[in-house]
Amino acid sequence: MQFNKVTEQLIAELKSIVGEANVLQDEEKIEMYSRDEVSDKLWEKMPEVVVKPANAEEISAIVKLANREMVPITPRGGGTGLAAGAVPLIGGMVLSLERMNKILEVDTENLFMVVEPGVTTGDVQKTAKSYGLLYAGDPCSADSSFIGGNVATNAGGNKAVKYGVTSRHIYGLEVVMPSGEVVTFGGKNVKDVTGYDFVHLMVGSEGTLGIVTKIWLKLMPLPKYVADLLVPFADMQSAIKVVPKIMTAGIIPTCLEFMDRLSIKAAEMYLNKKLPYSDAGAYIICEIDGSSETQVQDDYETIGKLCLENGALEVFVADNMSSQERIWKARKCYAEAIRMLSPVYCMEDVVVPVSNIPKALEAIERISQKYNCKIPSCGHAGDGNIHATILREDRNEQEWHDLKDNVLDELYEAVYALGGNLSGEHGIGAKRAEAMDKHMTEAQLNVLRAIKKALDPNGIMNPGKLLKLQ
Amino acid sequence: MQFNKVTEQLIAELKSIVGEANVLQDEEKIEMYSRDEVSDKLWEKMPEVVVKPANAEEISAIVKLANREMVPITPRGGGTGLAAGAVPLIGGMVLSLERMNKILEVDTENLFMVVEPGVTTGDVQKTAKSYGLLYAGDPCSADSSFIGGNVATNAGGNKAVKYGVTSRHIYGLEVVMPSGEVVTFGGKNVKDVTGYDFVHLMVGSEGTLGIVTKIWLKLMPLPKYVADLLVPFADMQSAIKVVPKIMTAGIIPTCLEFMDRLSIKAAEMYLNKKLPYSDAGAYIICEIDGSSETQVQDDYETIGKLCLENGALEVFVADNMSSQERIWKARKCYAEAIRMLSPVYCMEDVVVPVSNIPKALEAIERISQKYNCKIPSCGHAGDGNIHATILREDRNEQEWHDLKDNVLDELYEAVYALGGNLSGEHGIGAKRAEAMDKHMTEAQLNVLRAIKKALDPNGIMNPGKLLKLQ
Repeated sequence: MQFNKVTEQLIAELKSIVGEANVLQDEEKIEMYSRDEVSDKLWEKMPEVVVKPANAEEISAIVKLANREMVPITPRGGGTGLAAGAVPLIGGMVLSLERMNKILEVDTENLFMVVEPGVTTGDVQKTAKSYGLLYAGDPCSADSSFIGGNVATNAGGNKAVKYGVTSRHIYGLEVVMPSGEVVTFGGKNVKDVTGYDFVHLMVGSEGTLGIVTKIWLKLMPLPKYVADLLVPFADMQSAIKVVPKIMTAGIIPTCLEFMDRLSIKAAEMYLNKKLPYSDAGAYIICEIDGSSETQVQDDYETIGKLCLENGALEVFVADNMSSQERIWKARKCYAEAIRMLSPVYCMEDVVVPVSNIPKALEAIERISQKYNCKIPSCGHAGDGNIHATILREDRNEQEWHDLKDNVLDELYEAVYALGGNLSGEHGIGAKRAEAMDKHMTEAQLNVLRAIKKALDPNGIMNPGKLLKLQ
Repeated sequence: MQFNKVTEQLIAELKSIVGEANVLQDEEKIEMYSRDEVSDKLWEKMPEVVVKPANAEEISAIVKLANREMVPITPRGGGTGLAAGAVPLIGGMVLSLERMNKILEVDTENLFMVVEPGVTTGDVQKTAKSYGLLYAGDPCSADSSFIGGNVATNAGGNKAVKYGVTSRHIYGLEVVMPSGEVVTFGGKNVKDVTGYDFVHLMVGSEGTLGIVTKIWLKLMPLPKYVADLLVPFADMQSAIKVVPKIMTAGIIPTCLEFMDRLSIKAAEMYLNKKLPYSDAGAYIICEIDGSSETQVQDDYETIGKLCLENGALEVFVADNMSSQERIWKARKCYAEAIRMLSPVYCMEDVVVPVSNIPKALEAIERISQKYNCKIPSCGHAGDGNIHATILREDRNEQEWHDLKDNVLDELYEAVYALGGNLSGEHGIGAKRAEAMDKHMTEAQLNVLRAIKKALDPNGIMNPGKLLKLQ
């Protein structure tokens, strides 16, 4: 695709659509739109202009302009992505959804919430809770991520083991198509087989097929009882080997997480607070919820026993909010805590079938030793989803790039050999587009490219993300 | 699209691909492939040829031939569809998946079953159960429907209230694309955001985007305790008004069904067995399951109490297999039992947000009175999904067609006015393609047509199904 630069004429037209105050060009103001949470200059780029529309109509007008001018659009949510999906790497405009931050409706009869994309996931969760309901999407970045970004990346998170990833909770979307047409698919019907499932094609499409402007989220009754277990083990392999055992014990845990020694140390440094058994080789964190106290107790006792029989050093039970929060703070601060070990790092997000989690961690250990680099890991053990993070530490630019190239190559080879793939929830974005291209067959890529071309013939929607630029 | 007739040359080539015995042309043998469960001559048509391939490679070769010859392909599962989706209405070949009926793997470590499309849903359920696991898809036609057909139509069924429709259980698909290319997306990873969610675009695409040849089904632990409630009410409106109350009581029932007076009577006639309170105005049938006996008891007591406070005549609890089977037999025989009232009928499948179920049933009652026709209804109340069936009785051909046209027009208008749509689980097929076309916006149709055209440029895959022929 041949794209054009943003012209003064286009800026004037954008201002007439969204108002002068919502078109940003000052370097100081647009700097924050030049990156996401990928901590690497390679994945940063200043936008030519940032535009902040207020509604679908304005977005429609902007998209039509972009088509006319052949200027690419990079849609942006909370900027918490880990794949450079919201960075305008080949120029053009960033379209920020931050002003579209209204909760439009909480429907307690049908258990739905209707929201704009710029509401934070945390606000969705809190609002649901205030009605005695649960929004079960729970990425670690919930406090700052936008629900629209969760939809765009099909965010996973902690509760996916029991409640599924974001797509599970999405029943309707209003979308501004790459043509500028506004369409709504789905809504409050919990079953719908009228036409192709466009809603779930949009979920996870990373802003490459259109811009989501309204979201119908399914809520559910808030579980009455919740208990968390923090289970330290002497070493990673004993900890992780208990995971497939828990998953086949006839119980569906809400969350089943793990942290390795380095992740625990990093969390301790970041939180500046002693963690229990913080010299342990690994933690398993497990949450159980349900509508019956007995059931929750029975389930966590079964799991606790299973852990102790399989080498756990101790089983801490947290059945009240404050002790639960303490446990989750350690787990959820991973992305920030890792910076205490190395300000620059490369956080990966590989996934394997649950039974292969021990082998995947063995492979990570092997690669770490081979290249003499630290790769702290933690993640969603119950989903087979591992956040392995390569640390730059004091390597120079060239050494860092060589290290990353080598480690990523071997890491991806290893997970594909185990029946896994390269991203469970962080997405492809720009960061992994090349790698995905390498690991998919030409036939698979043909399918994806055909869909992209059909819906975005000019290729203006977030080019180079999810699919490699042709 | 301009299609061609099946030639002798094509027949010879088909025979060389699948073997002579698997290419059928005898009228007697192919007659059963001329219809599905829609009981109306209008939706029947003899195929020019029926071909029964044994694997993806044979299907790939057949699809390539069909493209070369511009002969349409109608893929077919168990033939239990209710939308004429598997009927070759504009000619060409029927491609039956009946020989691809192997369960390839039961993976008890990762809780997956890998199957070919021609396995019956009932065999999937039974096999899972024999390993102490649950396959939660449960359409009423499970005994004869193929799992591939469940995928093609995104079948709903009884347990969707708690466990979701078929799409929820599908994590991977091998597909022969309309080009003949064989692709696999997904598999045993429970999270996967590499590329667009092609798996769930295929689910519900009714054979118009390719032919599914292998399916990765997610299983879960078999709930230890199950109880069913059969709750008769004096009239339909009191029964149905309890449904939104149950759905917001903080409990997620596994199933929440209703049957109206005529459906109960029909079941009684069909089963030739007295049903309890069979002169009641309606039944509510509710299933609760879980891993704790106390929880299941607590939940059904809460629901039972709620029903009695809201006009239930009685609450029968079935907590053993044989009494549970009796209840479900009455509900599951609906499609067959209706024939006792009228051999020809038109079974609809509208869906509305759960809170609008009472209004939808009021509308059906009003339409029934206006046109002086019987419309027995039953269905998945907890999903807002109503199987309303227009009976032909002794009307002549013209009267019947006029009646159907009028009733369907008013029924669809009514459900759309209530935020509903025209099919919750039976699908569009050929039967509802015209109506869907009418009720969707041009912008929505453009999206669907673009996807179809991108993946099946020659339009050979099940033309005229899901989307109206252009």
